[in-house]
Amino acid sequence: MPTPASPLVGAPVLGIVGAGQLARMMAAPAQAMGISLRLLAEAADGSAAQVIPDHTVGDYKDLATLRAFAVGLDAITFDHEHVPTGHLETLEREGVPTRPGPGALVYAQDKLAMRRKLAPAVEDGGLGLPCPAYAEVSSAVDVAAFAAANGWPVIVKTSRGGYDGKGVWKVAGPDDPALADALSIRESTGVALLVEELVPFVRELSALAVRSPSGQALAYPVVQSTQRDGVCYEVIAPAPDLAEDLAIAAQRVALTVAQELGVTGVLAVELFETRDDDGTSGVLVNELAMRPHNTGHWSIEGAVTSQFENHVRAVLDMPLGSPRPRQPWTVMVNLLGSDLPELHTAFRHVFARDPRLKVHLYGKAVKPGRKIGHVTTYGTDLDDVVSRARHAASYLVGEIDE
Amino acid sequence: MPTPASPLVGAPVLGIVGAGQLARMMAAPAQAMGISLRLLAEAADGSAAQVIPDHTVGDYKDLATLRAFAVGLDAITFDHEHVPTGHLETLEREGVPTRPGPGALVYAQDKLAMRRKLAPAVEDGGLGLPCPAYAEVSSAVDVAAFAAANGWPVIVKTSRGGYDGKGVWKVAGPDDPALADALSIRESTGVALLVEELVPFVRELSALAVRSPSGQALAYPVVQSTQRDGVCYEVIAPAPDLAEDLAIAAQRVALTVAQELGVTGVLAVELFETRDDDGTSGVLVNELAMRPHNTGHWSIEGAVTSQFENHVRAVLDMPLGSPRPRQPWTVMVNLLGSDLPELHTAFRHVFARDPRLKVHLYGKAVKPGRKIGHVTTYGTDLDDVVSRARHAASYLVGEIDE
Repeated sequence: MPTPASPLVGAPVLGIVGAGQLARMMAAPAQAMGISLRLLAEAADGSAAQVIPDHTVGDYKDLATLRAFAVGLDAITFDHEHVPTGHLETLEREGVPTRPGPGALVYAQDKLAMRRKLAPAVEDGGLGLPCPAYAEVSSAVDVAAFAAANGWPVIVKTSRGGYDGKGVWKVAGPDDPALADALSIRESTGVALLVEELVPFVRELSALAVRSPSGQALAYPVVQSTQRDGVCYEVIAPAPDLAEDLAIAAQRVALTVAQELGVTGVLAVELFETRDDDGTSGVLVNELAMRPHNTGHWSIEGAVTSQFENHVRAVLDMPLGSPRPRQPWTVMVNLLGSDLPELHTAFRHVFARDPRLKVHLYGKAVKPGRKIGHVTTYGTDLDDVVSRARHAASYLVGEIDE
Repeated sequence: MPTPASPLVGAPVLGIVGAGQLARMMAAPAQAMGISLRLLAEAADGSAAQVIPDHTVGDYKDLATLRAFAVGLDAITFDHEHVPTGHLETLEREGVPTRPGPGALVYAQDKLAMRRKLAPAVEDGGLGLPCPAYAEVSSAVDVAAFAAANGWPVIVKTSRGGYDGKGVWKVAGPDDPALADALSIRESTGVALLVEELVPFVRELSALAVRSPSGQALAYPVVQSTQRDGVCYEVIAPAPDLAEDLAIAAQRVALTVAQELGVTGVLAVELFETRDDDGTSGVLVNELAMRPHNTGHWSIEGAVTSQFENHVRAVLDMPLGSPRPRQPWTVMVNLLGSDLPELHTAFRHVFARDPRLKVHLYGKAVKPGRKIGHVTTYGTDLDDVVSRARHAASYLVGEIDE
């Protein structure tokens, strides 16, 4: 049944577009702070629709749906970056704060626009941030020309619409069928393609910043992120053995992007840590996301204020909470679906084995490779914290049976 | 709109009777663990109905309503102790696990039954636990006889139906109008009365235990609780300067009661700390509650596993999580309503002043003296942690303006 507005006078009303797990995890801290939530869900059984009573099912690409949804909201925020920029501009003109706003969000939606903003030097109108070499391409000839300068293999990406490894191809040479795949996507959808050098990175890092409309900003500790089949799998916070100057450089990149693009809420900057032949380390910007991010899930238990609470505070322009870690090490491992459809039976084993374990399930049906939840462990001994998290994740999805 | 069951195969379905803040705070950890919740609410805008989509409005005193609610549930638990014992016995007979069950719950519903179970020596069929002197009374003569043996003033209580200072009278002498009040309640409602000695306590303590149907049990650190006008106001975890033997004794009381009464879920034992003339300290049982308790709210941020998560795990017979504190001191101060109807404006000040502060609002309209939320602080310096919590609580309800 539809739930009436909170009887608490003056409670802010926050709209969330998209009913995925990010919206679901925003709900707990928002509800704890007495904030009323309204959700625009793709489906009635969406992950976040299971925890937000005031939800409607509708198409976020439809302006009329968005307009009806926005009535009476103090702000709108997002579970994903797919709402058309033009619709957000319309909502903004009509007085509904969209956070992040369309002027910022376009750089998370469009990888070519992002590179063109971040990479050029400041004197050329860019932000002068370290990025891989890149170029827009529309043909195999363009890709070959880029590779001639930067070497094979190269990475080809769609500028829009990709996520979790989709829309990204590693191309070994001019005859690699992956290149034909990428070009055929461009042909059929009209989406622009870009090519980037394959960065011989040491590891992947992620820097999260949070910024409020009035300009307060903070950065979480830089974390180490490990992928599995192109999907974030394991995050260690903070990144082990990260040189302090590199950590500061990575946080500075996130804070600069948040400030210069006018991001509101969480900004995640996925980075490559590189090492030159002479041993000099550096970071390069890989991707941006303007929403709570998988590499920040550790903060629910691991930080004084989680990325979800700070996102909610930021988009409502409330002062931000401390991002400091609560203990030396926190590890998050994703639960990626296997062919085991049921997870709760395994709770008995993993909870009995580790009374400090935290398990998060997103209320999603299990499909192979799908992110269906995550586990978090924390403590003072990194090896112990890592092994507890990995064991629990492997056991829960049925990869191991003891 | 009604929300379909979680698409996650095998997700347990937990029913909660009562839509107060305790049910509201159970929701976040249950939802995090992918457990489906169904709520029987007193009103559509109840505190917990704002965060649990699958809710129905109905009367928990009506057996047909309870039966309809119970269909398909893995277990039923409670926001309060007011569901009639007979109804719970019927549900149990019909195969619905009620947790705690009626056999235990009666001792939280009926203070006379509780005293008669806890106080007598083990050889007399009791639990031999330290309790104040008490007697059932039905007249002023009975009360005077008790006072002749135990001294004035005395405490008169209704055996059923009281909470937060209601149904409790301090009676100074035979002519105190409070005594006539108490006796008139007995006359009009038929509820039994008991009289207890006024315990000259040093302070109030609270011991929380959690027990699962299969018998796993644990105890949280014993906390110090301070009342204001008969309502829990401030909790310090752990209780400062509590002698270790007394802490162990208090935890043992809670674990004994949980075990011997067959409690499932959280059991809170409110205790008096006493000191004899010769300086010997002790504890006496004041009240029992069989549900998450105000004196355990500190555990949301303060313990590895909150009382709410452990309650949910326990009533579904999942292994319990560690109750250990995450830092030396945690302080919770309740937000008791004043004549200020709106709280969120004050968030700007308290969050800006203390980036580590946690604020919980229950989505309830403000009424003078009503519990509308709480704040939590934690850290290593007790004075600092206490003063931060007190300041935030006082500022949020408008008692101070800087």
